[in-house]
Amino acid sequence: MTSSTEPAADEVIHAVSVIATKRGGGELSDAQIAWMVDGYTRGEVAPEQMSSLLMAIYLRGMNRREIATWTRAMIDSGRRMDLTGLRRDGRRLITVDKHSTGGVGDKITLPLTPLVASFGVAVPQLSGRGLGHTGGTLDKLESIPGWRAEVSTEEMLDQLERVGAVICAAGADLAPADRKLYALRDVTGTVESIPLLATSIMSKKIAEGAGALVLDVKTGSGAFLPDESDARELASTMVELGHDAGVDTRALITDMSVPLGLAVGNAVEVAESVEVLAGGGPADVVELTLALAREMLDAAGRPDADPAEHLANGRAMDAWRAMISAQGGDPDAPLPVARHQDVFVADRNGVMAGMDARAVGDAAWRLGGGRSKPGESVSAEAGVVIHAKPGDRVSAGQPLFTLHTQDEDRIAGARSSLAGAVRIEAGDAGTSGAGDRPLIIDSVRFTR
Amino acid sequence: MTSSTEPAADEVIHAVSVIATKRGGGELSDAQIAWMVDGYTRGEVAPEQMSSLLMAIYLRGMNRREIATWTRAMIDSGRRMDLTGLRRDGRRLITVDKHSTGGVGDKITLPLTPLVASFGVAVPQLSGRGLGHTGGTLDKLESIPGWRAEVSTEEMLDQLERVGAVICAAGADLAPADRKLYALRDVTGTVESIPLLATSIMSKKIAEGAGALVLDVKTGSGAFLPDESDARELASTMVELGHDAGVDTRALITDMSVPLGLAVGNAVEVAESVEVLAGGGPADVVELTLALAREMLDAAGRPDADPAEHLANGRAMDAWRAMISAQGGDPDAPLPVARHQDVFVADRNGVMAGMDARAVGDAAWRLGGGRSKPGESVSAEAGVVIHAKPGDRVSAGQPLFTLHTQDEDRIAGARSSLAGAVRIEAGDAGTSGAGDRPLIIDSVRFTR
Repeated sequence: MTSSTEPAADEVIHAVSVIATKRGGGELSDAQIAWMVDGYTRGEVAPEQMSSLLMAIYLRGMNRREIATWTRAMIDSGRRMDLTGLRRDGRRLITVDKHSTGGVGDKITLPLTPLVASFGVAVPQLSGRGLGHTGGTLDKLESIPGWRAEVSTEEMLDQLERVGAVICAAGADLAPADRKLYALRDVTGTVESIPLLATSIMSKKIAEGAGALVLDVKTGSGAFLPDESDARELASTMVELGHDAGVDTRALITDMSVPLGLAVGNAVEVAESVEVLAGGGPADVVELTLALAREMLDAAGRPDADPAEHLANGRAMDAWRAMISAQGGDPDAPLPVARHQDVFVADRNGVMAGMDARAVGDAAWRLGGGRSKPGESVSAEAGVVIHAKPGDRVSAGQPLFTLHTQDEDRIAGARSSLAGAVRIEAGDAGTSGAGDRPLIIDSVRFTR
Repeated sequence: MTSSTEPAADEVIHAVSVIATKRGGGELSDAQIAWMVDGYTRGEVAPEQMSSLLMAIYLRGMNRREIATWTRAMIDSGRRMDLTGLRRDGRRLITVDKHSTGGVGDKITLPLTPLVASFGVAVPQLSGRGLGHTGGTLDKLESIPGWRAEVSTEEMLDQLERVGAVICAAGADLAPADRKLYALRDVTGTVESIPLLATSIMSKKIAEGAGALVLDVKTGSGAFLPDESDARELASTMVELGHDAGVDTRALITDMSVPLGLAVGNAVEVAESVEVLAGGGPADVVELTLALAREMLDAAGRPDADPAEHLANGRAMDAWRAMISAQGGDPDAPLPVARHQDVFVADRNGVMAGMDARAVGDAAWRLGGGRSKPGESVSAEAGVVIHAKPGDRVSAGQPLFTLHTQDEDRIAGARSSLAGAVRIEAGDAGTSGAGDRPLIIDSVRFTR
């Protein structure tokens, strides 16, 4: 055993009996779940025991009660924030949170947070950094000169009262069990489990203390859970979990088979977000931003508010500038631009029938936009800019992507990721099956 | 992550892909298996990754090729012994090995090894120490004053040439991967997997280098795998594995629903073994010793040899005395006797319909005969002596067990283990279903 913990014999035996229960397809009791999650967080249950249990859960599942108990145990491992005291002009602020399960080019949090805040709703976005083929919101924002992700709880509450919008790093005391468990799942092949994904997301979101929560659950080739039925199950599991914890939770099921928008990376995604806040930007990014904003405003008791108005009249942009400035960022500073840019062209005439979101995400990752382990630094400049999307007519030699990187050696690898990413077929534009599925597939609300 | 190893990112990613393959029910390639087993042994695959894979194997299984490759990888982690050079009187010695999957009161290795050796066959018995409810062969023999389990390879080979029989501790270089994996499985709920049990047993036995191998695969309530179908599957898996590795392997399926013989513990089991070698002893111990000896002698090319003869005429006892003396033991020294003895009596009149082997094993363990973690010392004196077995008529107040211990405080716990261990029913002796299943249920040989 190379574990750094040396648990007592009784604890070893107890952990084995919990593992054996789930291994055999049985239900874990509330006491068993609390004991394992708490013991693992405190270092008394060894990582190798927890990972064995996680694989058993992956293959055997958990029922609604087990999922709720597991989530509560993770919340109880840290502090649950209290946002009920937030006031502006003497009136209580309503708080609404948002979470996306992650997708390639998914920069929606950036325009969405100030947009919703511009209606007088407080939007706390406690975020993480990226790992794997989807980027991290904090990594993207850190390409803005001066902007800092780390703020104290006091600063965060103050910013919510003054500006209404905050995107910052989650404190270490927010569901620390989840932080430790997520790192373990990442290296033990136990990430893509619906019960474990639901507990991980919802423990953090419930601990953040917002009164309502809107989830963007992705489906399609670029999503964590490509199958739509899995995405629906995850969405309804989380909506139930939120409801049981007293948080008004709803979800949209959205398509992630092609990248969102035309920019995938860090600074390039910030630039695209600013375009949206300025009333422009790619149609799909605008559509999803508005759909999520409407859900959040509805959950905040503002069903009649029209978020499109605040994109058009600059109110959302004002909130963005205030939000960035509050964390030391300069909203007027030019964003960093990559030293090396390389164009990837179409190899034939025809109509683009498909674009593999995951391949584009991998290319951006290889260009330096992502990390392969926690703590690595990422390149603000790295990314992929997309020039044509499925349904578009293209001709041989026409640019499909521009690759951005600080390190010329990374280009070959990124090009190999993109090699099979685009499908070009003979035919007419707009008739080749692309876009058959709407961007917003369904919405999920709690029903008893 | 609290793992003490810090693998490179590529290795983390590769381990996750191996885990994902098995998690999805796929077949692991030879390269994947070799990479994981070797990487884990060298500390480059983290324990939490291996335990996740082990649980996936537990729930998804492995096919015959995967099992053979896994076994080979474990053998390759250390040294394979070469016993082909053993000679006596100028003639090559035939070597036959034996392994039991373990049971309560299973001291068969003690009389069997010298018995078979008394026919001029070399019997190397590289053994382990006990963990859990079944005792360890070395723990039992260490109750003989002066006897030592640790011998060098040179001493072992010399003893095989001179005496023919050796029971000693396996060297650290024999399938070290198995040693490390077994310790991991023990604390992660992944012991009772047929593919993993088969690879664990057979990697050690093949590495020991004997030309033939006889397996005693236990079934019934006191066995690792209580279900007979599981025992049969384990037996045929191991027979195939041995055959594929060039070792003439055969198995007996034997009953372990009641303890073997009348002694369960350390010194008390040695005493019973000596009775068998002297031509006496309990009928079931004698029957199983003879059945396994006949299989071993047959595998050694001595199908006509009659082992019962050597129990009757003292040749087996001579070999025992030589074997014990060769390792510093005094075969004439009195065995240690427990300071405290406590009698457990029947609470009613009737016929004993059943005795739970596991409960009796637990009682012996609680009296100090076993350990709860590696490295703990065990008490030579501790154990349970059985006075009546299923099928016997008993009357209220009649002694059923004598508990032996050095520590009076352990008696209450052991008595609680025994409380439900014996079933006494109204009826006539020998008619109550006890003994319905023969001790030796079946034999398994290789068939194409």
